[in-house]
Amino acid sequence: MRTSIATVCLSGALTEKLTAAARAGFDGVEVFENDLLASPLAPEEIRARCADLGLSIDLYQPMRDIEAVPPDEFRRNLRRAEHKFRLMERLGADTVLVCSSVSPLAVDDDALAAFHLRRLAELADGHGIRVAYEALAWGRHVSTYDHAWRIVEAADHPALGTCLDSFHILARTTDPGDLEGIAEIPGEKIFFLQLADAPLMAMDVLQWSRHYRCFPGQGGFDVAGLLRQVIKAGYQGPLSLEVFNDVFRQAEAGPTAVDARRSLLVLQESVGLTAPPAPVVPTGIAFAELVSPDVEPVSELLEALGFTRTARHRGKPVDLWQQGEARVLLNTGPGARRDGTQLAAVGLESPDPAGAAERAESLLAPVLPRRRTPEDVPLDAVAAPDGTELFFCATGRPGLPDWTTDFVPAEPAEHTEPAEPGALVEPPASGTAGGLHRIDHLALTQPWHQFDEAALFHRSVLGLGALDSVDVADPYGLLRSRAVTNADGSVRIALGVGPAPSADDGDRAQHIALATDDLVTAARRFRATGGRLLTIPANYYDDLAARYEFADGELETFRELGILYDRDADGAFRHCYTETVGRVFFELVQRDAGYRGYGAQNAPVRLAAQHVRRPVR
Amino acid sequence: MRTSIATVCLSGALTEKLTAAARAGFDGVEVFENDLLASPLAPEEIRARCADLGLSIDLYQPMRDIEAVPPDEFRRNLRRAEHKFRLMERLGADTVLVCSSVSPLAVDDDALAAFHLRRLAELADGHGIRVAYEALAWGRHVSTYDHAWRIVEAADHPALGTCLDSFHILARTTDPGDLEGIAEIPGEKIFFLQLADAPLMAMDVLQWSRHYRCFPGQGGFDVAGLLRQVIKAGYQGPLSLEVFNDVFRQAEAGPTAVDARRSLLVLQESVGLTAPPAPVVPTGIAFAELVSPDVEPVSELLEALGFTRTARHRGKPVDLWQQGEARVLLNTGPGARRDGTQLAAVGLESPDPAGAAERAESLLAPVLPRRRTPEDVPLDAVAAPDGTELFFCATGRPGLPDWTTDFVPAEPAEHTEPAEPGALVEPPASGTAGGLHRIDHLALTQPWHQFDEAALFHRSVLGLGALDSVDVADPYGLLRSRAVTNADGSVRIALGVGPAPSADDGDRAQHIALATDDLVTAARRFRATGGRLLTIPANYYDDLAARYEFADGELETFRELGILYDRDADGAFRHCYTETVGRVFFELVQRDAGYRGYGAQNAPVRLAAQHVRRPVR
Repeated sequence: MRTSIATVCLSGALTEKLTAAARAGFDGVEVFENDLLASPLAPEEIRARCADLGLSIDLYQPMRDIEAVPPDEFRRNLRRAEHKFRLMERLGADTVLVCSSVSPLAVDDDALAAFHLRRLAELADGHGIRVAYEALAWGRHVSTYDHAWRIVEAADHPALGTCLDSFHILARTTDPGDLEGIAEIPGEKIFFLQLADAPLMAMDVLQWSRHYRCFPGQGGFDVAGLLRQVIKAGYQGPLSLEVFNDVFRQAEAGPTAVDARRSLLVLQESVGLTAPPAPVVPTGIAFAELVSPDVEPVSELLEALGFTRTARHRGKPVDLWQQGEARVLLNTGPGARRDGTQLAAVGLESPDPAGAAERAESLLAPVLPRRRTPEDVPLDAVAAPDGTELFFCATGRPGLPDWTTDFVPAEPAEHTEPAEPGALVEPPASGTAGGLHRIDHLALTQPWHQFDEAALFHRSVLGLGALDSVDVADPYGLLRSRAVTNADGSVRIALGVGPAPSADDGDRAQHIALATDDLVTAARRFRATGGRLLTIPANYYDDLAARYEFADGELETFRELGILYDRDADGAFRHCYTETVGRVFFELVQRDAGYRGYGAQNAPVRLAAQHVRRPVR
Repeated sequence: MRTSIATVCLSGALTEKLTAAARAGFDGVEVFENDLLASPLAPEEIRARCADLGLSIDLYQPMRDIEAVPPDEFRRNLRRAEHKFRLMERLGADTVLVCSSVSPLAVDDDALAAFHLRRLAELADGHGIRVAYEALAWGRHVSTYDHAWRIVEAADHPALGTCLDSFHILARTTDPGDLEGIAEIPGEKIFFLQLADAPLMAMDVLQWSRHYRCFPGQGGFDVAGLLRQVIKAGYQGPLSLEVFNDVFRQAEAGPTAVDARRSLLVLQESVGLTAPPAPVVPTGIAFAELVSPDVEPVSELLEALGFTRTARHRGKPVDLWQQGEARVLLNTGPGARRDGTQLAAVGLESPDPAGAAERAESLLAPVLPRRRTPEDVPLDAVAAPDGTELFFCATGRPGLPDWTTDFVPAEPAEHTEPAEPGALVEPPASGTAGGLHRIDHLALTQPWHQFDEAALFHRSVLGLGALDSVDVADPYGLLRSRAVTNADGSVRIALGVGPAPSADDGDRAQHIALATDDLVTAARRFRATGGRLLTIPANYYDDLAARYEFADGELETFRELGILYDRDADGAFRHCYTETVGRVFFELVQRDAGYRGYGAQNAPVRLAAQHVRRPVR
């Protein structure tokens, strides 16, 4: 089906919006009246610009407070409509949206509403225009799709149909059965379909609609369920996004349009309209790649954690550090100089790297250029919304290109031959010197306006599942965090976002959490080899003592090492933190099998401690 | 009455919060448990720090999910409470807040709740501690103040009382009569009073409470009405602010604490607890002061608008430009070099400048140092939340120090004597050359986190009235605007705020709107003398034609000059805009007597046009 987007979804001047919509691959747009009024382009120029960009103008909107009003008022309305229909002819738009009236002058009289809409449709028809009548959720007398449809049916004019808007319908729907009436509307009388999602919030529906709508899949509505009914009805028009969102108004139009279109692609897939390459869910973290302008502080930290430098990329200044199945690449190449030490890339172990990359590309994930020499293993990578490079990898699996074969064993072994496939998969000879055996999770900071999109990206592109978002109180503002994981928890990524856009967005910490079966021993080893653990206030331990009963001496050990503790119904979580280098720190975690969280309860204490002890560099 | 503030209201580490509270003049604090847990200071050290700062610790909070639970759970709760009571002894806090249970384990059994609370109070009593039981608006079984009080009454223990929280009570109150029961609680059994306001929003009460609370007077609750009932009851404890607000969490603690205390001072005044100097409502705009690093562009603009340079400050590089009763100071002193052209100060015509300054100082407005020579007229000035200097002035009124006497008539008249009082009050010889006769309103941009506070400041310190806040769609994000005015509209200030904090907050435009009785003539004159008006898109005028009927040729004239049009029930508003110099532009307005607005409807079009045509410098 054709895809369309309302200009109100995107930030900027009308021409910026049109360009962004076209570049993201939309077939058409809804022109929002205010965007046209504010544009220096004449309607004919806007029409030409759209044609140049390959965009149709699928809808002009909105026309308000038309129907069921006193005669004088309706005369004025027809006069206004006549003006707008002439404008639409110049614009080349053949469908207009009429919202159910919110006017205090409107009366509760369906017959009068139908009569007025019929008159409007007659007028429109003379201009070759169709009228699509929509029930606003807060319409004065008409606020449900079936009521709007009954009026359209009664008016019975070929140039009058209904417009369905998923927000207005789903904001008022408590029973999914309420949607079944949609399928009974004749498809050709559904003139238009507007799609929006929203987070589930108990709030005034007008405020909810005007400020918090989001793209399908980013919120909590069953937009797919509604779409299925509309398809069943036989609707043939475009799938059009109409989202009012305070954040998108500020964000750059280009990326927002891409996110919007990805949302529609995923929605179409979910109802079987399209079949993009299936998701290939990652089965583990192959590596985390740090870039750093200075090898020393990170190397020291990795050594103290028990990692061994086992290999070096044969063409680039990238070292592979290993411990058990935890692999960290340390990249000191030229790109690293600019931004200090940070977590720049993640290798996702994939059963089908090429398939995973095809899936990502089909969902508009930015495919990264391969900056590799011809002899390097071809690695597919895309950029996540926060800029992190995601590599789809295989580590020592027969028949798949193996990223480790680009590496040669590190000195002192003096080999210069590339590793054999799988040669580096086995834990290094040093074993798990630090008691750490794999990456438990990664924590990445998202740009402020990308939080909901980041979750949708990781779900749809990577096939991960998203947990609920949690609020975390930092001393200097509320953070939000949402984890995405695969089914067995071998891939866990915590997506975090700060309280609002700020100049230091780029400075926010990222971290790598390493799993151990014995945190106390691992923490002691780390300290014994020169590592410094984040100091946790004594008051925290007094509170633990009040909340839980511990074995003799356990709490004193926690206190000594700065170990934090959490538990849920199924198990306990023990964790502690290294100091921060650049933007990056490490977390050491001991997770009971049943425990599903990330110690969010302890995050305020950790964040406050990190503010006390500023990053080393 | 004593004033107190919960540490959760303020941003930063506990020590920052305590310092900010003490500097703002609070007598005490509520220590929020999470702030203590995250602090590296031991309870004894926090106690000592508070003592040094002159702060009492009036409350420790919160203790949750204590009452009406199964016996095992209650045993664990008492164990936890025992820990906390010992902590409170170290901290020197003698009252603990217990919130009504939200635990799924809690049963609906008032007798059991009372029994448990009595047991808790007995335990507390042994430590010299009092328990204040509060109904959360979303408590599982206890959610109203009267229900909480009935349980406290039934428990009947001297160490058990109730805590009243204005948010929890007012969020559930639809009938003011519901508050009258408060006065019937014995005053000595109200152990604590927490005060918060909130904007009136129809939303989930938990989310509303956790993210949107604000200080009394900043929202829409009748906090004063509640406080009157509490006083009637005979409450003798502190007035304590407890505000959870996402914005305050990010804002600097010092200014937030001052705003918080001002809010309490105004609240106390409103219920007759204190009598600070009465507000002295300004009666007009004496002058608007622009600072500019370069005199030329602003002078040219003022000349084109019909202003005449009539005088110069005798000691500083400040020129007085006049037209009718509109006076603009142009300051090119050293301070102007830094930030480009901006609106830096406003002279408010005051019937009692000294009284107005006393009022401002008593409400903690930052009093500005007088950087004046001994012979200058003493002018009182304070800083508004956005940094604008507000001068309390008299212009040519006998018996009051007259700011104009610091000025000497400008060349070519060659006078060097200071003006006589009142000499500059008469319109200059040039009259109203540009057809503009007074300042209609000023528009100032507020720092992002200061929007609600700015309205409270202007209301309480200056005695102005605030209109409702309106949303305005800029192409790059939603703006909010709220006007404050005096009764006759001779002082109107529009307070605007951008969509979120950003690096260019300081670049946002400010403007001076000048009143005319004949906008078309004034706009033509401006253009004829070389002024350039903001170009408004033709599409805007097509829409006006659709919406209103105009006299022959009127719309064409509007279109030619870039005049915007609005009307409300009582009259019309015509306005147009100059180009922008630095951060500042001028608006020319013709306001029918009855029209109350500021043309907010047209603001999106104006903002878009200003983005098209970037500022001149």
